[in-house]
Amino acid sequence: MSLITVAAAQMGPVSPGEDRRSAVDRCIALMEQAAAAGAELVVFPEAALTPFFPHWLIEDEDELDSYFETAMPNPAVEPLFAAARRLGVGFHLGYCELDRGPAGKRRFNSAVLVDRQGTIVGAYRKIHLPGYAEPRPHEPFQNLEKRYFSVGDLGFRAFDAFGTRIGILICNDRRWPESYRMLALQGATIAVLGYNTPRHHPAFPESDRLVVFHNHLSMQAGAYQNAMWVVGAAKAGVEAGVDQIGGSCVVAPSGEVVAVAETEGDEIVVAAVDLDLAAQYRAHVFDLAANRRPEHYGGLL
Amino acid sequence: MSLITVAAAQMGPVSPGEDRRSAVDRCIALMEQAAAAGAELVVFPEAALTPFFPHWLIEDEDELDSYFETAMPNPAVEPLFAAARRLGVGFHLGYCELDRGPAGKRRFNSAVLVDRQGTIVGAYRKIHLPGYAEPRPHEPFQNLEKRYFSVGDLGFRAFDAFGTRIGILICNDRRWPESYRMLALQGATIAVLGYNTPRHHPAFPESDRLVVFHNHLSMQAGAYQNAMWVVGAAKAGVEAGVDQIGGSCVVAPSGEVVAVAETEGDEIVVAAVDLDLAAQYRAHVFDLAANRRPEHYGGLL
Repeated sequence: MSLITVAAAQMGPVSPGEDRRSAVDRCIALMEQAAAAGAELVVFPEAALTPFFPHWLIEDEDELDSYFETAMPNPAVEPLFAAARRLGVGFHLGYCELDRGPAGKRRFNSAVLVDRQGTIVGAYRKIHLPGYAEPRPHEPFQNLEKRYFSVGDLGFRAFDAFGTRIGILICNDRRWPESYRMLALQGATIAVLGYNTPRHHPAFPESDRLVVFHNHLSMQAGAYQNAMWVVGAAKAGVEAGVDQIGGSCVVAPSGEVVAVAETEGDEIVVAAVDLDLAAQYRAHVFDLAANRRPEHYGGLL
Repeated sequence: MSLITVAAAQMGPVSPGEDRRSAVDRCIALMEQAAAAGAELVVFPEAALTPFFPHWLIEDEDELDSYFETAMPNPAVEPLFAAARRLGVGFHLGYCELDRGPAGKRRFNSAVLVDRQGTIVGAYRKIHLPGYAEPRPHEPFQNLEKRYFSVGDLGFRAFDAFGTRIGILICNDRRWPESYRMLALQGATIAVLGYNTPRHHPAFPESDRLVVFHNHLSMQAGAYQNAMWVVGAAKAGVEAGVDQIGGSCVVAPSGEVVAVAETEGDEIVVAAVDLDLAAQYRAHVFDLAANRRPEHYGGLL
């Protein structure tokens, strides 16, 4: 067996008054627990450093910008990179990115993959933005990702890292089978992702009773149908008045949830990822090259 | 609610000595039960009229041809069409098709969708053929679909039928997310499919314990991620020495299995399909037009 021990580092709420340093300290504490459990790779949630501010309307530009990082790493986050080097543990971190490139000021819902030497080896900007751009004042909270973020412009990519190939997805990407498939076609054996998922869907409350089931169903299908491991880390619990699910987990290429969070707070979920199992499912069940029929998939584009 | 009552008509084994007339009589008996339960649409399995002969090597051309229909309907199957007209019940029927068109003699793993007047309103030829073309004499049974069948040439299509839009998949198609998506993008609200799935995977027995789970996981994810109903009908039980799973079911757009077979023999599984539920999931969770990002899916082709 070719094993990598991974940890999904679930985080409880990051309150609006909590500063970066506090969030980073919590990440470091989780990383230390993960390292003690033998983990080589720790997966933090989407937007791990801030509350999930798309849940409310922010009209002041400076206030909005305050939730974004203009560089990664930066002084506030550098201690997490230093801890990675000290512990010899790599990580995935979701954060909100303000880019002042040639295209002008753009905001992305982003993530980086960092190796055990503290070096960024992969970056991703969320492609499947959920929600809407115009506020819905009649609803108890908002989902303004389409207002605050641009659609990611880096594509779906798998990176050589941790002795294998790893792809990054973010939150809503996990519900769209195209996301996993794009990574699998690049040879990814592990997909890492963070999410912030409210327990309540204001426009469709009939689905609320199934929100945890849908979370796992999406990751289980993505894992099975692409013969890859999936590591999902939630920001959970009641944050700024919005109750978010936990359920952070590690899913095997068999589609089985092999480890899952027991709380809705800061918690690590550790599992030994067997890369050989991914290779076996790829060879015997989902040989993409032999069995996909792209000539019949034209409608997908 | 806009309801259509459907039945998955699971069939126990069709033995190698059983003729078409016997298989058709069993289908008619299941259709009568389904009609009595109020069903408007009955879904029969893949290759419902014959044993699943890709499980063994057939070298004699005439013997191989004997498992195929050269027309649909034909005299042996006509009584099923007559029963549909008499009962006012439509159906899906999987069968093996020998086509002697301008392209020469070709064999397909096919299915037709027939309305309540007994008229064929849709046809499909299986695209995702599993297995291999060269026999594996060391294995206890074969999976020679790639030897006996050509890849379907009709594409993935949704048909106007039963007051909605219905797509057809066959067996292995259900494990590939592209299949459901192609139908959903054409507005399908129901996918009907039949399957023959051995309990044992000779080359990968480690997965055997999960074969029923994988069957349902695939259909549940396809239903949820595409906001459609899925009706799956198995040929089940020990047929020509090969033990096949049952698990025939109806899956809601919520991803929930709302009805499932209790046996591995001839049995109908009835459910009321609420088309409004599909519309709600499409509007509130999987608005394909608003949230898919085809510009980032180039690699899928």
